[in-house]
Amino acid sequence: VPSERDILDRLRRFSPGIGDDCFVYRPSPGEELLFTTDLLIEDVHFRRSTHSASDIGYTAAARGLSDLAAMGAAPRFLMLSLALPKWADSRFAGRVFAGLREHGVPLSGGDLSHAPLLICDIVACGSARRGTSLRRSGARPGDSIYVSGSLGGSALGLAIGHGRALHRHLRPEPRIALGEYLRARKKATAAMDLSDGLSLDLARLCRESGVAAEIEAPPIFPGATIEQALHGGEDYELLFTSHSFVPLLHKGVPITKIGMIVAGQPGAVLLNGRKLRALGYDHFARQK
Amino acid sequence: VPSERDILDRLRRFSPGIGDDCFVYRPSPGEELLFTTDLLIEDVHFRRSTHSASDIGYTAAARGLSDLAAMGAAPRFLMLSLALPKWADSRFAGRVFAGLREHGVPLSGGDLSHAPLLICDIVACGSARRGTSLRRSGARPGDSIYVSGSLGGSALGLAIGHGRALHRHLRPEPRIALGEYLRARKKATAAMDLSDGLSLDLARLCRESGVAAEIEAPPIFPGATIEQALHGGEDYELLFTSHSFVPLLHKGVPITKIGMIVAGQPGAVLLNGRKLRALGYDHFARQK
Repeated sequence: VPSERDILDRLRRFSPGIGDDCFVYRPSPGEELLFTTDLLIEDVHFRRSTHSASDIGYTAAARGLSDLAAMGAAPRFLMLSLALPKWADSRFAGRVFAGLREHGVPLSGGDLSHAPLLICDIVACGSARRGTSLRRSGARPGDSIYVSGSLGGSALGLAIGHGRALHRHLRPEPRIALGEYLRARKKATAAMDLSDGLSLDLARLCRESGVAAEIEAPPIFPGATIEQALHGGEDYELLFTSHSFVPLLHKGVPITKIGMIVAGQPGAVLLNGRKLRALGYDHFARQK
Repeated sequence: VPSERDILDRLRRFSPGIGDDCFVYRPSPGEELLFTTDLLIEDVHFRRSTHSASDIGYTAAARGLSDLAAMGAAPRFLMLSLALPKWADSRFAGRVFAGLREHGVPLSGGDLSHAPLLICDIVACGSARRGTSLRRSGARPGDSIYVSGSLGGSALGLAIGHGRALHRHLRPEPRIALGEYLRARKKATAAMDLSDGLSLDLARLCRESGVAAEIEAPPIFPGATIEQALHGGEDYELLFTSHSFVPLLHKGVPITKIGMIVAGQPGAVLLNGRKLRALGYDHFARQK
């Protein structure tokens, strides 16, 4: 069993400030900072049979970074609270950190503990020019609704366990560059990331904006079903609304218009004219 | 079982920004920000038989706030990642939040999940005038060594399970006002909080500063043993070094000189002239 000092020494190599009780960040003038935390828990969010140590570190960071992308922020630093079970040695911990580092965002501290199961809690901090961060609440009737990439790949990958879809599930790409573009160019009236499924997340965006939506089928990941594309979680694509010109492609990522924001019951979504139930992943609804 | 929306609605009442993917913070000019994360896991850091829901929320926040106090920062906001087992309903979650709010620091977001055991990860953000945060690395030979309050009360409370000592264990007081005083008045050359026991934490401070220490017995919580005072964790008092005048009392909290920083093997501590082994709580050394 590695000592806390061994693991802290390993963590320290990635994170200069770890010797003190806190990490110190000096903001630049005109900056606003964005913060998100995301839990990733063994047998709740992932299984050891599916995710390697580096997949776990990569995914933990991807979830936080995708929240920053949703608001158009540039990543500044990550912190990781990590609890390791007995079966996870310091080499395993090192591979978790290596997966996290694939995103190229500094790891600036965190906490280490043991636990009966593996627990990651990622803190992601991003930065934007003051007053420019994208919100969920800005969608207005007449705005077009867009998604990046294609949907359902992560759910397909989890179901079949191989191929490009599995890679999509294990190595989702936070849409950082697209989020920053939409924010800096004032292209989006509202935005969020698709973590719990389009049907649930679009309803949330509409509820926050006090509007309704009418959509057609979204772009579907090759081999996925329409149900996986509508209700499958963890695609980490961006969902946004706009009333200005939006390109069909941004840095290799396709952007597709899927519908329109309309006046109506806040949170209501019609798919091809019929009510779409919000069946995406609700972490508490599953706990029965 | 409460739905995620029920619990989010409850969380939202405490935290205005929760509707978006991130919490947005706008720094003031000349401010540096301090960040810490701390895990609090059922049957690792606490037991349900000892800690009520509000004790859990209070303690989770206290651990983070004590890290801010260690560096002299003023608390700005908290974030809480909370995973609830099936036995914990939304009233239980509400009492966790109530305990957290006893500290009077805004709760600005977080994450919610389910899990087989209760997990809290607190993020605490504090603020200090740029360049003034207290560090572990500034102790120099000739500095005096001080502790606030008395030590061993938390370990005693855990052992006997009643009385003032138990209250000390369940409701530790982060020394925020003292930390800010030491920082703003430039009273401390180095500081940290006592979370894992004096013997281990003083060795850490000395190692970070490249110095050694010679101490006498610290002030002992009434009824505690010298071993509990030297090696017991979770007192959350401040340990600091100084080469200027330090008062005996600050806002009702006693301050006691316990020794001197000396040149020597980095991290070595002598108690009454004899080598003091670092026996405090190491989260990984216990996992055997």
